[in-house]
Amino acid sequence: MRSDIAWSNAETIVIRGHDLVEELLGKVSLGDFGFLELFHRLPDESESVVFNAMLVSLAEHGMTANAMVARLTYLGAPESLQGAVAAGLMGLGTTFVGTIEGTAKMLQGVSGDDAWRTDDAALEELATGIAEGFVTARTPVPGIGHPIHKPVDPRAEKLFRLAREHGLDDAYERLLRAVKAVAEDRLNRELPINVTGAIGALATTMGLRWEVSRGLGVMARAVGLVGHILEELDQPIARTVQHETERTASAHLVEGNSHG
Amino acid sequence: MRSDIAWSNAETIVIRGHDLVEELLGKVSLGDFGFLELFHRLPDESESVVFNAMLVSLAEHGMTANAMVARLTYLGAPESLQGAVAAGLMGLGTTFVGTIEGTAKMLQGVSGDDAWRTDDAALEELATGIAEGFVTARTPVPGIGHPIHKPVDPRAEKLFRLAREHGLDDAYERLLRAVKAVAEDRLNRELPINVTGAIGALATTMGLRWEVSRGLGVMARAVGLVGHILEELDQPIARTVQHETERTASAHLVEGNSHG
Amino acid sequence: MRSDIAWSNAETIVIRGHDLVEELLGKVSLGDFGFLELFHRLPDESESVVFNAMLVSLAEHGMTANAMVARLTYLGAPESLQGAVAAGLMGLGTTFVGTIEGTAKMLQGVSGDDAWRTDDAALEELATGIAEGFVTARTPVPGIGHPIHKPVDPRAEKLFRLAREHGLDDAYERLLRAVKAVAEDRLNRELPINVTGAIGALATTMGLRWEVSRGLGVMARAVGLVGHILEELDQPIARTVQHETERTASAHLVEGNSHG
Amino acid sequence: MRSDIAWSNAETIVIRGHDLVEELLGKVSLGDFGFLELFHRLPDESESVVFNAMLVSLAEHGMTANAMVARLTYLGAPESLQGAVAAGLMGLGTTFVGTIEGTAKMLQGVSGDDAWRTDDAALEELATGIAEGFVTARTPVPGIGHPIHKPVDPRAEKLFRLAREHGLDDAYERLLRAVKAVAEDRLNRELPINVTGAIGALATTMGLRWEVSRGLGVMARAVGLVGHILEELDQPIARTVQHETERTASAHLVEGNSHG
Repeated sequence: MRSDIAWSNAETIVIRGHDLVEELLGKVSLGDFGFLELFHRLPDESESVVFNAMLVSLAEHGMTANAMVARLTYLGAPESLQGAVAAGLMGLGTTFVGTIEGTAKMLQGVSGDDAWRTDDAALEELATGIAEGFVTARTPVPGIGHPIHKPVDPRAEKLFRLAREHGLDDAYERLLRAVKAVAEDRLNRELPINVTGAIGALATTMGLRWEVSRGLGVMARAVGLVGHILEELDQPIARTVQHETERTASAHLVEGNSHG
Repeated sequence: MRSDIAWSNAETIVIRGHDLVEELLGKVSLGDFGFLELFHRLPDESESVVFNAMLVSLAEHGMTANAMVARLTYLGAPESLQGAVAAGLMGLGTTFVGTIEGTAKMLQGVSGDDAWRTDDAALEELATGIAEGFVTARTPVPGIGHPIHKPVDPRAEKLFRLAREHGLDDAYERLLRAVKAVAEDRLNRELPINVTGAIGALATTMGLRWEVSRGLGVMARAVGLVGHILEELDQPIARTVQHETERTASAHLVEGNSHG
Repeated sequence: MRSDIAWSNAETIVIRGHDLVEELLGKVSLGDFGFLELFHRLPDESESVVFNAMLVSLAEHGMTANAMVARLTYLGAPESLQGAVAAGLMGLGTTFVGTIEGTAKMLQGVSGDDAWRTDDAALEELATGIAEGFVTARTPVPGIGHPIHKPVDPRAEKLFRLAREHGLDDAYERLLRAVKAVAEDRLNRELPINVTGAIGALATTMGLRWEVSRGLGVMARAVGLVGHILEELDQPIARTVQHETERTASAHLVEGNSHG
Repeated sequence: MRSDIAWSNAETIVIRGHDLVEELLGKVSLGDFGFLELFHRLPDESESVVFNAMLVSLAEHGMTANAMVARLTYLGAPESLQGAVAAGLMGLGTTFVGTIEGTAKMLQGVSGDDAWRTDDAALEELATGIAEGFVTARTPVPGIGHPIHKPVDPRAEKLFRLAREHGLDDAYERLLRAVKAVAEDRLNRELPINVTGAIGALATTMGLRWEVSRGLGVMARAVGLVGHILEELDQPIARTVQHETERTASAHLVEGNSHG
C-alpha cells in the first residue's frame, strides 16, 4: 500500500518530486500541474501548449446538460457548491465526453507490429479492419461524427494542427483520419473527426492510458462548471427551467383531472 | 432566462466573447481559462501567475480523505471515472476547503468606510472587532491555524509574496494578518495564516464573490483527483484499505460471536 | 475504531443484532429496515406506520429540480444509473429537504425545564421566543410556509393525525403549531406547517438527532429518483429540456452575432 | 415532453393515480412505494414480501467501500449529509451491485421461443449456450460466485425460497441454476448463486427492465448509508482511517527524505 504522489512535513510539501513552494507555485500553471499528475514530470513548452489546448477545448460548451445539472443542484443545495459541480461532472459519461475514452481505447488496442506508422498500405489495412469492426457491429465509430460541427469540427482540426506544429508524432492522427475515411465510405456520409476524437488521439500519442483519458474532460469541465454556478448566482435560470418543465410535462395530468 | 457564457454555430464557438479556435486554443492555459470563467476577461501576465499559483496550491494534498473517496468509489464503479472524481470533490466542504469561503466571507463582510486600508489604527480596530466576534462565539477564525504547517504555512506566505511581487493590493493580506495577531493574543497560541486563508484573501482582492470562492478548490482538486485514479490503476490501495478497515472495525462483533 | 452495524462470516450475516436471513428477509420492509438503521431496533406496528408515512411523503414530488438532475445526468452517462440518482440526491439541501433539519434543530434546541410540555402558558412563552428569534433575524421560520399547499399542507396534517392516532406524544407538534401561530401574527400572513416541518417535529419526537434528519429525505427520494430514470428510459425528456434551455438562454448571443 | 408520475394542486397530490394523502400515507410502506415507482401499481401482499426482501438484502453490508466513502465525505463536508450519501452511492457500479444488472441483462437477453420454461432439455441447452459464451470470453458469469459466502450464499437461497412460497414463477431461477451448473462444470469449481444474481433473476421475473435493475441497490443502500452517517456522528472512524492510510502509503517517501 503505497502512494508516490506527495509527502509533507511541517515546512515542506513535495509533489511528484517537486517542492511545491519552491518549484511549483508561481512557476507552473494549473494545466501544467495536470500534466505532472498524469505523466509524473512537468511538460516542456510544446507539450504545455498542446496539453492546455486539449483541456481548454473541453472546458466550456455553454448550456449543456451538465451545466444545467450543476445549476439545478445549486438551486436546492446552495450550501454545497462542490456538490453542484460534482453533480454536473457525473454526466460526463459515455454519451459525450466518454468518446475520448472510446477513441483512445480503439487506438491503444492496435497491437502487433508498427508497420502502419510508416507504411501507407499497412495504415489503410489497419484502418479498414478497425472501421469495419464498428460498422459491422452497427456501433458508432468513436471520435467521429458531430450533430452541429460538420463537415469539420474546427476544434479537432486546430488541436491536430497545434500538435503537429509543436512536434508531436502524427501517427495516431493519420490512423484516425484513415478510420474516418473508411467509415465515411461504408456509411456514405460525412463524418468529421470531433473534438473528443482528436483528444483521444493526442492523449494516445502522449502516452496516457485510455482508462484515465476521460479524466481530461473531468479536469476541464470542473473549471467551466464553476463559471456556471457564478452566472447562476448573478442571472439565475434554474428555477425557471424547473417550473416550465414541470408545467409542460404534467399539463396532461392536471387537465385530465381538472374536469373530474 | 439568459446565459452570456458561450454560443456556437457549425463553424464557430465563442466563449465570453473570445473565438475558441482562433483566440483561445494554443494561447490560453486551463488556469487562465478558469480566470476567464470567473472574471469574464483573460488575466494579464501578473494575474495569471498569482491565480495559477492559488489553484496549484490546492490541487494536490496527497492521500487526503477525498483522494481516498475517489479511489474507493473507483473500486466499485470503474465504468465511471467521472463519478469517482465527483465523489471525491463532494468532500470539499466546510472542514477543509470551505475555509476559503469562510475567510472570503469574513473579509467581504467588512463594510462602511475604507479608512482601514490606509490607517493602521483603523485596521487594528477593525481586526479586533472581527477576531473578537469569533473568539467570543468560540468559533475558529477562518483562514487561521493549521495542525501541521505551523508556526507558518509556507504556501500561504509564498502566495502572499507572489501577489505583492505581481502588484496586487495587499490590504486584505494586512487585514487578515491583523485579525490573526488579535486571535493569537486572545487565544494565547500561534495561529499561522493557512493556505486557504491566503487564497480567501487573494480571491477577495481579485474581486471574486465569496459564495463561489470554494470553487477554486473544486477546479484545482479535480485535477489532482484524476492523478489519484491513475495511480490507483497502477498501484491500487482501495481494496486493502477497505479490507483492513472492515476487519478492524468489526473485530469486536466477530469475536463476540465466534464463541456462540 | 469500531462499527456496531453488521458482521458476517460464510454462513451468517448479522445486522444490528438480527440475523439477516432468518429474522429480516421476508419479515421486515425497507422502511422498517430504515428504522432499524436509525434507532438500532425494529419499530413496533404503530411506529412502522408513522415512520413509513414520513418517508413516503418525501419520496416523490413529480418533476422537481432533483428529478430533472437525475434525468439530465442519465442522458450523459447511461452507464451509471447510480451516478444519476446520486446527482439528483445532491440537491436535497437547505432549500427544500433541508427544512426537516432546520425544524428538528429548532425543536431540539429547546433546553431547560420541560414545563412547556404540560403548561400552555409556558408553551406560549417558549414559542414566542423561538418565533421572534427568526422574525427579528428576518430569517424564515423552518417548517412553516409553502408556495402552493396553503393555507394547509395536507401532508403535514395527515402525518400529525397518523402520529396521534398511533400514540406518539404530540408535544413537539403543539410547540410547532404555537411557533407557527406567533409567526403568522407577527408577519401577518397565513403560514401552513409544511410537510418537512411535520417530519422534523415527528423525527424529534422519535428521538432522531437533527444532524441526520435530512437523511429521511435522502432515503425516500432515492426511491423516487429510480422511478424517474425508468420513465426517462420510456419517455425521455432530458434532451428536449436541454435543447430548449440552450436555445432560449443563448438566443440573444446568437442573434447578436448573426448580423455581424 | 410528458411525465405520468405525479401532479398536484393546492389541496391534492396524486402519484401514479393514487391520492398521496388519502390512499398512500399510513397505508403504504417505503418499499411498496418503490414497487409503485417501478411497476406503476401497488404490490399485492406476496409481491410486497418478496420485493421488500430483495431490497433489505441489499441495504446494509457493513463497512463496505461505499460506507467508507460516505463517512470520509461527511468528514470533509458535514454541511451536506445528502452529498455524503450520494458519494457513497456512486460506487454501486459494475464491481458490486452492478452484477444485478449483468444477471438481469443475461436473462432478459434470452429470445425466441419459450420452450425452455417447461422443457428440461431446452433449458439445459439454453443454459449451456449462455454459460459457454462467458467461459469462452473468459468473463465472469454474472450472478455467480462469491469470495466469502460459499458454497452457498444464504441470502440468495432465502430470496428464491421466499419467491417460490409466494407464488412467483421460478423459470428464471431454474435457468440461472442451470447456467451455474454448466459454469461449475466447465470451470471446475463451486460457484454459488450470489445475492445480486438472485435479485437479477427475481427482478426479471417481476418484469423489471435490466437497465434500471441496478436501481434496486441504489434504493436500498441509500437507507443503509444514512445509518452509517449516524454511526459516524456517534463513533467516528473516518479521520483515523485517513490518517493511518496517509501515514502507511507515504511512509517510504517520508523516510526516503528524512535523511536528505
